[in-house]
Amino acid sequence: MKLWRLTVMIFILIKCNSLSCQQFIISFQTVSDCVVGHFYDVSSLSCVQCGEDQRASATGLACVCLPGHRVHKSNGASLTCQRCPPEKPAVTEDGFGCIRCPGGLSEEGTCLCPQGTVRVERDLQGNPLDEARCEACNGDGPAFSVPNNNGDSCERCQASFVNTSNSCVCTPPNVLCRHSLCVPPLSVCVSLLMCSCITQSIVCVCGGCIQVFTNLTACQALGNMCVMNMHSFSSVTNDACGLFNLIFRSMAALGTTQDISYWRTNLPWLYYGDQPGLAGRVLQTDPLPIEFSFKGSKKNTDIKLISAVYDVRGEFLRWENVSGGSLQLCPDTALRQRAAYTFGTAYQESVKLLRTYPEPLFYDVFVDLSQGEARKLLAVPSLVLNQQYNGRYVNQENVKNWYLSRRVFVVDTLSGREKSLSSKPKAIRVAADIKLRFQLVPGTQKGQAFPPLLSVSYKDVFLTDLATQTVRVSFAVEYEMDQNEARKRTDIALGVMGGMAVLYSLLKTVSWKRRISSPLVDMETLLKFLLFYAGDLANVFFCITVGTGLYWLIFSKAQQFVSVLLPLPAQEERMVTYIGCAFALKAIQFLHKLILQLSVDIFLIDWERPRSKAASGEAKRDPSPVSIWRTYFVANEWNEIQTIRKISPTFQVIAVLFFLEVLGFSNLALRDPWSTLERPPQAYKPPYSLTLRYALASTLWLCIGLLQVVFFTVFHERFVEDKIRQFVDLCSISNVSMLVLSHQCFGYYIHGRSVHGHADTNMEEMNTNLKREAESLCGQRGLLPNTDTQTFQVSISTRLRQQYDRIREPLGRRNGPSRLVDASSANPFEQSTRAYNTMNRFLGSVIDHVGAHRDMDYIVKDKLFLERVIGMELLEPNEKSIFYNDESHSFSDVLFYGNEATLLIFDTLFFCVVDLGSQSFVLAAVLTYVQQMIFRWIRGVLGRRNLANKTLVDERFLI
Amino acid sequence: MKLWRLTVMIFILIKCNSLSCQQFIISFQTVSDCVVGHFYDVSSLSCVQCGEDQRASATGLACVCLPGHRVHKSNGASLTCQRCPPEKPAVTEDGFGCIRCPGGLSEEGTCLCPQGTVRVERDLQGNPLDEARCEACNGDGPAFSVPNNNGDSCERCQASFVNTSNSCVCTPPNVLCRHSLCVPPLSVCVSLLMCSCITQSIVCVCGGCIQVFTNLTACQALGNMCVMNMHSFSSVTNDACGLFNLIFRSMAALGTTQDISYWRTNLPWLYYGDQPGLAGRVLQTDPLPIEFSFKGSKKNTDIKLISAVYDVRGEFLRWENVSGGSLQLCPDTALRQRAAYTFGTAYQESVKLLRTYPEPLFYDVFVDLSQGEARKLLAVPSLVLNQQYNGRYVNQENVKNWYLSRRVFVVDTLSGREKSLSSKPKAIRVAADIKLRFQLVPGTQKGQAFPPLLSVSYKDVFLTDLATQTVRVSFAVEYEMDQNEARKRTDIALGVMGGMAVLYSLLKTVSWKRRISSPLVDMETLLKFLLFYAGDLANVFFCITVGTGLYWLIFSKAQQFVSVLLPLPAQEERMVTYIGCAFALKAIQFLHKLILQLSVDIFLIDWERPRSKAASGEAKRDPSPVSIWRTYFVANEWNEIQTIRKISPTFQVIAVLFFLEVLGFSNLALRDPWSTLERPPQAYKPPYSLTLRYALASTLWLCIGLLQVVFFTVFHERFVEDKIRQFVDLCSISNVSMLVLSHQCFGYYIHGRSVHGHADTNMEEMNTNLKREAESLCGQRGLLPNTDTQTFQVSISTRLRQQYDRIREPLGRRNGPSRLVDASSANPFEQSTRAYNTMNRFLGSVIDHVGAHRDMDYIVKDKLFLERVIGMELLEPNEKSIFYNDESHSFSDVLFYGNEATLLIFDTLFFCVVDLGSQSFVLAAVLTYVQQMIFRWIRGVLGRRNLANKTLVDERFLI
Repeated sequence: MKLWRLTVMIFILIKCNSLSCQQFIISFQTVSDCVVGHFYDVSSLSCVQCGEDQRASATGLACVCLPGHRVHKSNGASLTCQRCPPEKPAVTEDGFGCIRCPGGLSEEGTCLCPQGTVRVERDLQGNPLDEARCEACNGDGPAFSVPNNNGDSCERCQASFVNTSNSCVCTPPNVLCRHSLCVPPLSVCVSLLMCSCITQSIVCVCGGCIQVFTNLTACQALGNMCVMNMHSFSSVTNDACGLFNLIFRSMAALGTTQDISYWRTNLPWLYYGDQPGLAGRVLQTDPLPIEFSFKGSKKNTDIKLISAVYDVRGEFLRWENVSGGSLQLCPDTALRQRAAYTFGTAYQESVKLLRTYPEPLFYDVFVDLSQGEARKLLAVPSLVLNQQYNGRYVNQENVKNWYLSRRVFVVDTLSGREKSLSSKPKAIRVAADIKLRFQLVPGTQKGQAFPPLLSVSYKDVFLTDLATQTVRVSFAVEYEMDQNEARKRTDIALGVMGGMAVLYSLLKTVSWKRRISSPLVDMETLLKFLLFYAGDLANVFFCITVGTGLYWLIFSKAQQFVSVLLPLPAQEERMVTYIGCAFALKAIQFLHKLILQLSVDIFLIDWERPRSKAASGEAKRDPSPVSIWRTYFVANEWNEIQTIRKISPTFQVIAVLFFLEVLGFSNLALRDPWSTLERPPQAYKPPYSLTLRYALASTLWLCIGLLQVVFFTVFHERFVEDKIRQFVDLCSISNVSMLVLSHQCFGYYIHGRSVHGHADTNMEEMNTNLKREAESLCGQRGLLPNTDTQTFQVSISTRLRQQYDRIREPLGRRNGPSRLVDASSANPFEQSTRAYNTMNRFLGSVIDHVGAHRDMDYIVKDKLFLERVIGMELLEPNEKSIFYNDESHSFSDVLFYGNEATLLIFDTLFFCVVDLGSQSFVLAAVLTYVQQMIFRWIRGVLGRRNLANKTLVDERFLI
Repeated sequence: MKLWRLTVMIFILIKCNSLSCQQFIISFQTVSDCVVGHFYDVSSLSCVQCGEDQRASATGLACVCLPGHRVHKSNGASLTCQRCPPEKPAVTEDGFGCIRCPGGLSEEGTCLCPQGTVRVERDLQGNPLDEARCEACNGDGPAFSVPNNNGDSCERCQASFVNTSNSCVCTPPNVLCRHSLCVPPLSVCVSLLMCSCITQSIVCVCGGCIQVFTNLTACQALGNMCVMNMHSFSSVTNDACGLFNLIFRSMAALGTTQDISYWRTNLPWLYYGDQPGLAGRVLQTDPLPIEFSFKGSKKNTDIKLISAVYDVRGEFLRWENVSGGSLQLCPDTALRQRAAYTFGTAYQESVKLLRTYPEPLFYDVFVDLSQGEARKLLAVPSLVLNQQYNGRYVNQENVKNWYLSRRVFVVDTLSGREKSLSSKPKAIRVAADIKLRFQLVPGTQKGQAFPPLLSVSYKDVFLTDLATQTVRVSFAVEYEMDQNEARKRTDIALGVMGGMAVLYSLLKTVSWKRRISSPLVDMETLLKFLLFYAGDLANVFFCITVGTGLYWLIFSKAQQFVSVLLPLPAQEERMVTYIGCAFALKAIQFLHKLILQLSVDIFLIDWERPRSKAASGEAKRDPSPVSIWRTYFVANEWNEIQTIRKISPTFQVIAVLFFLEVLGFSNLALRDPWSTLERPPQAYKPPYSLTLRYALASTLWLCIGLLQVVFFTVFHERFVEDKIRQFVDLCSISNVSMLVLSHQCFGYYIHGRSVHGHADTNMEEMNTNLKREAESLCGQRGLLPNTDTQTFQVSISTRLRQQYDRIREPLGRRNGPSRLVDASSANPFEQSTRAYNTMNRFLGSVIDHVGAHRDMDYIVKDKLFLERVIGMELLEPNEKSIFYNDESHSFSDVLFYGNEATLLIFDTLFFCVVDLGSQSFVLAAVLTYVQQMIFRWIRGVLGRRNLANKTLVDERFLI
């Protein structure tokens, strides 16, 4: 029984060990963790002890025999070693044999031979010798031999030694360069040796280059040194670039390469000339022989850049397509990197990074003009911003002083190495800002551009911690066109329209003076003029900015052959300023209008007379009172239509947002030539253009606004509901007229006298009345007999206005501070009711041409066409007030309804300004909605209070 | 004069040539463009002719002498060659000398020596010989020598030759592998040679591996071959994996490595065992000894993966940090690539690309468990989905059959090469889908996870056009936890709450039956029950989904130690289904309520009696009519409050959008553990979690909705404006009562009898009345004397209802089709007016307990607490109607106002459903706004029509 249990337990243990309990955890060892006498076994990933007389090899991945031991048997891992016998103490080079030495032993246990000699361990047939021999190589002609790299045979020495000293020794005054080159003492190079600031390597390269005989790459290497020095040189010191120029000048006799005067035979082309203004001529004289086109069958947006790539030693490596990302340090998908080389797509990428790079590469960049068989290249000039010329940063100055160059590098990890090339660099030099700039030929219709300019700004980074250190690098492609023409046109438009705005504002001021019937020109007049001018100027700015924006939007997105390019961000400043001005001025106008609307004078004239009068002359002592509810109803309705608009503002916000963010219209504002709304998510997304964002937002806003206005005025108001018309009808049905005085002596009158005489009646009569009217069985509603016109603009005489004010006077005083005088008088309710009744009677009699107010009579007439156009009355209401027929319900000017244009433009500008500031359409929409809500609330609450004050209707009925 | 002109012209020409007219265009030539006898001059980037007796070198970048010519003088470009004299026709290897040959001449003009011999041109001291010698290498011991690579000296041959055949010749039956390895005829390997399907290289690798002696890398190489074959093997054929397993089994004696039973000494670890269920045990037995934590001082989210990298020949290259992007083919910034190895961040990247890759690398992936000094690694098992096991894709089956493996590669460009390794590959094999899956330990509170699983799916791409061809590759990191517990809880909640919903709906149905006073259980009852149930079930689904969502939102974003992980997209299906159900059911409930609201019965009772009556019994023959305008006013107000809500729906939409899109709350829905609202634009953006999006949207919507409700009920309605209260007051002031019958025998009554007796009066009296009431000088407004209660719920008796219907009957018929019968009767206006008057008198007398309607009397009482709770009346209005006091204005139940909960939830669900479908909050907001607008418009228009129909007020006054 016990045995059985034990078996089970063991079984469980084994089971456990082999399966579920197995942890699959190993200890982590690397080659460097292996102690002496151990090697790193790559199959078990652990350190394993070597066999007897063995030690780990240099890589640590295998075992080798100890010095003085030869390999006895090599079975891979199972190596066995054997100590060499004393008579043959050294190990042969292959490690398998033992040998006697003529001299000493090296640390590795092999024979040592003196310098200049080779070690021979086998005879010519491969038979091992008993004793190794050291044989000296014959350095003189015709042998010209030196030991080879292995040191086991003699070979011919480098040609420059033979050429220079006619032997394999570089005899003075020749200079030995890195054991592989012997350079003769050319005066131009050796003069540099005197100056301690010049390293020997430059002299070597210099000598190599001038002599030309060593190899063609020496000149390239010298050029690369100059490039790594950022092309800087001065006429006094002799650094790599100085040397290059020295050689350049001294080689004038050899002639030029490829017909380019700055490119000497056998030398790389590093500089354009230093004539003043040359840069401008190079960049802006001849356009590229390529026609860029965004659409159609001839679509051509490929910028084909190709570059010859050299390494630091001057070796030519290959021709490389630059669109593969040669110059782009920012890692990204090939698709997005390629987007940089699509003409018209502003490219901007920047990232913080620091990686280890292999040795630097040097790029000679060309535009590939090949078409079919004709293969041509155009050299792309580069502008090194750090380049110094006699200590001045000429390339950061005016374009006239620019000193263009050729050949750029991206990362230089070599110059920063102290001591030897294998040490870690202390600093690296990075092309932190690379910008490729295209400039359009002015006035081109065929998509011609000048040769691009590659502007490079290098940055030195001192390496402290490669793991965490970063450096900001950026790569950009910019497209530029001359904006002076456009700017001039804008200025002209601004001047002309600004002038017209002054005239128009003057006209408005005159009209206003007339309407308040004050002839004096005082401070108030000036202020008013400025207020009017603000509004008009805002419109001017708005028109110009929207026009300009639309111009860019249409032309940049719809052009086939490239003819315009978007303004650069720096060129957009004026535009932004204009938009700001437009918004600020519009806001002033809007607030001005709002305040005016909140202080209009309104009175509701009730035409209803007590029934008792009509009821065949019965007792007048208790006339049934006229119900005030009709007036309440009318006032209530007026209160409700105060803030209605010709559009639905919320729908406006939502619709604009829908177009921009959901349908992807916002993609039209990207700085590229494509007019597609949907972009694949992995595609490159260029930065937004402020101009296009503004154009897009304002156009969309205006278009949707106009569509809404059209929908509401043409369809909705005709077939569904017209609140303004309804209000006029309501006046008529309820037998209540309305007088609105927006100015001292100007205003609007809605004639609401019921054609049935009475409106204060029961449902039966109301229905009958309505029916009779529908069947045209009664008179017409107009003020004059047999007319339909119910709405009028009124210019009232000052006398009428004075009387109006006189009646309202006690009410106005009610709000004043001094109540001592008439504290004994009636309570405010009575006062208010009395004033209401008086006013009702007074205005009623004036309209009716009856009673004691014959001196305040009025005439009804049509407005002249001119008067309509300039918005001003030519006749002065001196004797009689004038009622102008007004079919277009212009009384809505004192409501939001009549000021849709101002409101719409204000909203548009608000939306755009928020968007320009935040670059977020959603935020702009939210804030615009809040803004609309706030102003509607202000207008509603204050308008209601004003209405209650002026019509004397209790505010509690305005719900 | 002419000369002068000529000079100027020449000057201009020169000037032009040197500066502005210079085009900087060169012809584009590459090395391959140079014709015979030309070399490519890298300094001028053009083809240049070589000198006499010269031709271009192999690279084409320099000139060399023609065969049979020695270099006479080498000055780099200016090379001169000289024909060798007939007595010394051959050129030496270094090209500088001429020599006699013992045998023939090669094509290059050098001496030819037979195979196995070396060519000697110099003596040991480096002196040139007159005639070259061909020396045979001694291949036997102890020399064991063969010619070296250059063929100019003898060296020891490879150890395997010596070991196998004790000479430098691989004598049969030994197998010579690629001239560098001699493998003995091991039975296990040679048996393969018979089978023609096996290439020789496998046999070589096999032999090398078994023999072990050649090098340790042979076994690794064999393993890599198996890995490139996607680990597939079967027990019948002998491919690389079959061979590996053969060797694996045969090497059992050598023991295991690192205590892991699947890892044999000297062999790579490729497979876990094939016991059924092993995969589950490996993956889910022991958690990682790492505690992941998202916050606090112990924050630890780094997934440290490290891999041993081998090349195809089996050489160990290095230990590599996997987070450097080893396995990620998609190019991206290091920052974003690193995001994949942050625990809890769901990573998903896929891109189409195809690039040229260098030779394949093989990765043995481990989790680095090192803490301080203790350095440990845990092997990460991989699951190759393409792996075949006896022809079955076992890894695509159930987890029980999985056959885990080790070692993966990313791109294999080797296997696809036909013929030789230097040829272009016909096909490449890409790891198209790499997925790293973490599984959380169930119920962990300390952030423990099981070992990750690396699942790999390879894809073969047949190369046709490298320039345009692409392949879709993806890399993903997924986090998973067992969702069964959560699902069970959800099911329980659903069951319990669903049951309660049934009860509640039954109660509602009973209440409804009572209110329509119909005792029968018919189809309509069942339908009604289903409608109620739809609403309640919708609430249940809504509660459960929001609750679940909130649970995930809070726990996944706020946890410190990792204890929950978001459900995977596949696990979210149930959630989405629930949301869909909730929305559909809620929509049904909403439409049901809407239809009910649009068909309520409303009547306005005017209490005003003609003045003449009051006026001390004067002539009754012409009583001044009671004005209908108060009724118009009240009806108009009712029309306006129909669609008001406890919140501003537009503000709701905008506010939610503001929080989500502008403040960046939407970032909380990303599948990562961070709860920051702002993410740097260059950071990696994980995919969204549907659950979190829903939780976020619904919570935000509900919160903002509740805040709005609180704001409007607590602040706005108390201090600014309460439309409902205002309406009740208006009823009272205007002397108009309102009866709303929402059911057959149930409804609401607003008592509006003026305390002043008359309301149809002028402004003076109205003001006085208002003032008197403000000073409490008159009675109270309530229905019962000395009470304030104006609003009631009414249960009316069937008798009263019948009478009501009888009065309305002629009106109802008006709309019917058959008008023949009463075509002769009064016109509709009159009919309507008569019905209005009758109804007015009838209802007035019932309320007043007067007149002939004593049998329709009513009593006023308080509702029991129980009745309030269950929303049902316990008493039946058999004899008398019952008026329940109702201070809480529950008549708003027939308005939008009283159904805010339903509307809010409907809007929430609408928003969420659109968002789940479109993944766009902006679109959801836009559509929700449009939806709100449409339903408000429908409710407004149809409600107005119903109001006009039922109250008999002309629709034209409802503006």
